[in-house]
Amino acid sequence: MTDELSRRPFADYPIRTSTLTRWSDNDMYGHMNNAKYYELFDTAINAWIAEQIGDNFSRMTVIGVVAESACRFHAETAFPGAVTIGMRIQRLGRTSVSYNLALFEGDKPLDKDEPVATGRWVHVYVDRAEKVSTPIPQQLRTALETLA
Amino acid sequence: MTDELSRRPFADYPIRTSTLTRWSDNDMYGHMNNAKYYELFDTAINAWIAEQIGDNFSRMTVIGVVAESACRFHAETAFPGAVTIGMRIQRLGRTSVSYNLALFEGDKPLDKDEPVATGRWVHVYVDRAEKVSTPIPQQLRTALETLA
Amino acid sequence: MTDELSRRPFADYPIRTSTLTRWSDNDMYGHMNNAKYYELFDTAINAWIAEQIGDNFSRMTVIGVVAESACRFHAETAFPGAVTIGMRIQRLGRTSVSYNLALFEGDKPLDKDEPVATGRWVHVYVDRAEKVSTPIPQQLRTALETLA
Amino acid sequence: MTDELSRRPFADYPIRTSTLTRWSDNDMYGHMNNAKYYELFDTAINAWIAEQIGDNFSRMTVIGVVAESACRFHAETAFPGAVTIGMRIQRLGRTSVSYNLALFEGDKPLDKDEPVATGRWVHVYVDRAEKVSTPIPQQLRTALETLA
Repeated sequence: MTDELSRRPFADYPIRTSTLTRWSDNDMYGHMNNAKYYELFDTAINAWIAEQIGDNFSRMTVIGVVAESACRFHAETAFPGAVTIGMRIQRLGRTSVSYNLALFEGDKPLDKDEPVATGRWVHVYVDRAEKVSTPIPQQLRTALETLA
Repeated sequence: MTDELSRRPFADYPIRTSTLTRWSDNDMYGHMNNAKYYELFDTAINAWIAEQIGDNFSRMTVIGVVAESACRFHAETAFPGAVTIGMRIQRLGRTSVSYNLALFEGDKPLDKDEPVATGRWVHVYVDRAEKVSTPIPQQLRTALETLA
Repeated sequence: MTDELSRRPFADYPIRTSTLTRWSDNDMYGHMNNAKYYELFDTAINAWIAEQIGDNFSRMTVIGVVAESACRFHAETAFPGAVTIGMRIQRLGRTSVSYNLALFEGDKPLDKDEPVATGRWVHVYVDRAEKVSTPIPQQLRTALETLA
Repeated sequence: MTDELSRRPFADYPIRTSTLTRWSDNDMYGHMNNAKYYELFDTAINAWIAEQIGDNFSRMTVIGVVAESACRFHAETAFPGAVTIGMRIQRLGRTSVSYNLALFEGDKPLDKDEPVATGRWVHVYVDRAEKVSTPIPQQLRTALETLA
C-alpha cells in the first residue's frame, strides 16, 4: 500500500542477521505467524545496536521505543529452517530513526534474492525514567551515521 | 504517518474483546512488547470469526492469511492488568477484508476513551492447500456485511 | 512420574485466574503449545502477587526467580476459548516458595472438574541487583501465609 | 529435586543446536524468561527430527505430543547472544521417548562447559486424527536407535 514496504533485493540491506526459526514460530496454518516477523525485526535491530554499543546496551538510560511498525507479507516461510533479516536505515533524525527491514529464507541469501516479507520500523528515543523525547545517544548516532 | 492509523474513541469500534495481559507480554523495558499488540489483534479478529462460524473454524478450507499489518503506538501499557481490543471493518472486498484495530487499557473502556495503540490488518482469503486467492466464504461474508 | 504433578479437582486450588487463550497459543497441531502453559502459570502467580503488593510490584528489589518448573499434560486445549489457572501453595520456605498449578478449560470450572494440565513451580527470592538468595519480602510472606 | 535434571558437561549431549536469542526472550528482569527455555528445547527436538525424516516432517500422521516436561534453572542467560541446546535420549520406548536437554551459553561450548539450565521431555506418539497412543514411526525409530 505504501512504497515504504516495497521489496528490494538482498544486496540493498547492509546489515544482516541470520538465525533459526523455532517450533513456536509456526501457527495453526503451519507457517510462521505474522507477529513473529516483528519479533525477528526487533531482534535484528537490537542485536546490531548491542554490537555497536557493547556493555552499555543493558545500561542505556535513553532507550528506543517503537512509535510505529508495519509489515507486508509477500510469501510465507516456516520452521524448520534458517532466516536472514536484512536491515537498512530509511531516515535518521535527531530523536528518532526509521529502518527498512526484510526477511529472507535461509542463512545465505544471494544478492538478487527477494524477501518473504518487508517491514518498516520507527524508534523514538526517550529518557528511560521520564519517557520524554530525547536525542539519540552519541555513541549510537555515530554508528547509525555510517549506515545512513 | 497514514490516516489509517489515527486514533478513534472506543465508541467507534463495534467489536470488543477483553483479556488479561500476561507476564511474558512485558519486555526488558517493563512495558508490553510491540509484537504482542499484533498477537492481541490477531486474537481479537480470529475470536470474532470463530464466534461467527462456530465449529467450522478449525475446519476452514479457505483461510485468511495476513497480507499486511501495521501498528502505531501512542502510549504504553503493561502487565498486570486487562486490555480491550476494539475492531471495525475498514473495507470489505471480494477476496480480502481490512480491519482497523485499537488497544485500550482495562476491561471496561468508556466510549470516549482513546486507545494506547491503533492498528491496521489486511486478510487475504486463500485456498488452504493451494494458497491461491479465493472469495471470502459465504458464512463469514454474511457476518462481515453486518459490520461493514 | 512424580506425585507432585497429580491431578486434583478445581476445588483444591484456592487462587484462580481466568483469561482468554490467544491465536498464537496454538501450534502446528492446532492445540495449545506446551510452553504456553508455563506462560500462563507465570501469569497467574505474578498477577496474584501484584494484587497482594500493589504498586510495589514493579519496584521490587527482591524478586522471585524460577529455580525449577514442571508440567504434566493430561489432555489438550486450544484457542479459541477461555482457560482458568488454579494455584495453591505446596511449600512456603524462608527464601523460596513452591506452587502447585493446574489449567482448566473455561472461565467457570466446576468444583469437581479435572485439569487439562498440572504444574509445579519453585520461586527462589534473590536480591535484584546481586542475585543472592534473600528472605521473601514481609508483605508478600504475609499474603502467602494466608494460603499455606 | 530429581536426578533426571542434574547437570552434565556439554560432551554428554550428542545432538547440538545453536541459535540466537531474541529480544523477546528477555522478560522484565532482563534475563531469558523461563518459558522460552521450553520453546528452545522444543525447537531442538523438532529440528533434529525434521532433519532425520526430511519432507515427511510436515506430513506426519503419527505425531509426538508432550506428556511431561521439566526444567531446572542453574544460572541465567539473556539476549543478546547465542545459545546451544544439547540433547540426549534418556529412554526409548515403543510409543514414547524421553530426552534430557540442556541449554549452554554461546554457539561453541567447550566439552567441559556446564549448562545454564537442564530439562527433561517426554514425547508420546499418537495418531494425529484420533489422538490414540501409537508406536513411534519406523523412520524416526531408526534414527532414535542410533542415539539410544
